[in-house]
Amino acid sequence: MKERKVYILRLSHRPQRDKRATTHLFLAARALGADGAFYSGEKDEKIQRSIEKVNRSWGGDFKVSYVTDWKKTIREWKKKDGKIAHLTMYGLPLQQVINQIKNIRNPLLVVVGGPKVPKEVYELADWNLSVTSQPHSEISALAIFLHELFEGKELSISFKDAKIIIVPQVKGKKILKLNSQQLKSFVRTI
Amino acid sequence: MKERKVYILRLSHRPQRDKRATTHLFLAARALGADGAFYSGEKDEKIQRSIEKVNRSWGGDFKVSYVTDWKKTIREWKKKDGKIAHLTMYGLPLQQVINQIKNIRNPLLVVVGGPKVPKEVYELADWNLSVTSQPHSEISALAIFLHELFEGKELSISFKDAKIIIVPQVKGKKILKLNSQQLKSFVRTI
Repeated sequence: MKERKVYILRLSHRPQRDKRATTHLFLAARALGADGAFYSGEKDEKIQRSIEKVNRSWGGDFKVSYVTDWKKTIREWKKKDGKIAHLTMYGLPLQQVINQIKNIRNPLLVVVGGPKVPKEVYELADWNLSVTSQPHSEISALAIFLHELFEGKELSISFKDAKIIIVPQVKGKKILKLNSQQLKSFVRTI
Repeated sequence: MKERKVYILRLSHRPQRDKRATTHLFLAARALGADGAFYSGEKDEKIQRSIEKVNRSWGGDFKVSYVTDWKKTIREWKKKDGKIAHLTMYGLPLQQVINQIKNIRNPLLVVVGGPKVPKEVYELADWNLSVTSQPHSEISALAIFLHELFEGKELSISFKDAKIIIVPQVKGKKILKLNSQQLKSFVRTI
C-alpha cells in the first residue's frame, strides 16, 4: 500500500477552538494510512504530544510538524515533484477525480482548510475536490478520501512497534499489552 | 439508496467538551445519507439548532432528538424490527461484517460511543464493528461506515428544498442561492 508518501496539511489551526478537531483529524490520518501531517496557524504543542503518545503505544511513526508559512510548504512539496489535493466542498466530486489521483505515483499533500481558505490554495492545488458539496467535517471528508485513495487496504494496516494491539471480538474487548519480548513473538505470528 | 431508515445514536454527549465533535458527527451523518440522530448525555439545544439551520439552508430533513434513556431507545428500535450496529475499535473489522449489514433491510441504528461505553451496549448490539482497531475519531469511523453501507451512492445525494446549492468547480467557488421560484425550476432540471 505504501508506495508513495501521503501527508496532510491542516491550515489555520486555532488551539482554543480546534484542539479536538485537529487531534481527531491527525489521528484519522494516522489510522487510515497517511505518513504525517503539517499544520499552520498557531503552534500547539499539546497536539503534537498527544499524537506522539499514540505512536508510542499504538505504533508507527506518524509525524506532526508545525509550519509558519503554509505557502512555502506547498511550494517546496511541488518542487520535489509532489502533488496537492485540496479538500473543499466547492471542488469537483471525489468520485470524478479519485482515479486520476490514484494513478499518479507522486508524493501527495492533502490540504484541509480552516475557516477561511485563501484563494491561493485553490490556485496552487492540482485538484480541488469535494467529498459531497454539503457542509460536514474535515475529519469525515479526509476519512473517505483516504479510504478511496488506499482502496480499503488502509483498514488492515499493522503498525510497527505497537505496544497495544486490539484483538477484534464479536462482543467485549480484548487488548494485548506487549512488552518488547512478547511484541517480537506476536509480530512473527501475524 | 434510501431503502431503509438509518439513524445514529450518540451516547454521553457533554456540551462543553463535545460540542464541535457531536455537531461534526451529525453533519457528517446528514451529508452521508443518514436520516437522523438521537443523542444521550446532557441536552444541548445549540447542537439541535445548528443542525436545523443547516437543514433550512442546505435542504433535507435530518432530525436530531435528545433521549434521556439510551437503553429505551435501543430496546424500542429492536422492538420495531430494527438492527443495531455499534462502532467500536474493539469490534470485528468493518470489512468482515459490512456485507451482512448491507444485505438486511431492517432499519439500522448506528451507535457511536462516548468516553466509556457501558457493557450493555456490546450486548444489545447486533454487530460490534471496528473501522480499524486504532484510536481515531467517531467522525471518521462513521464516515467510512456510511460510505461502505451506501456503496458511495451517498456522495451524490441531492437534498430536497435546498436554498443553497454548490456547483462543483475546478478552481474557486460557485454557490447558487435560490429563492423559492428559482428553487422550483432548479429542482426540475436535476
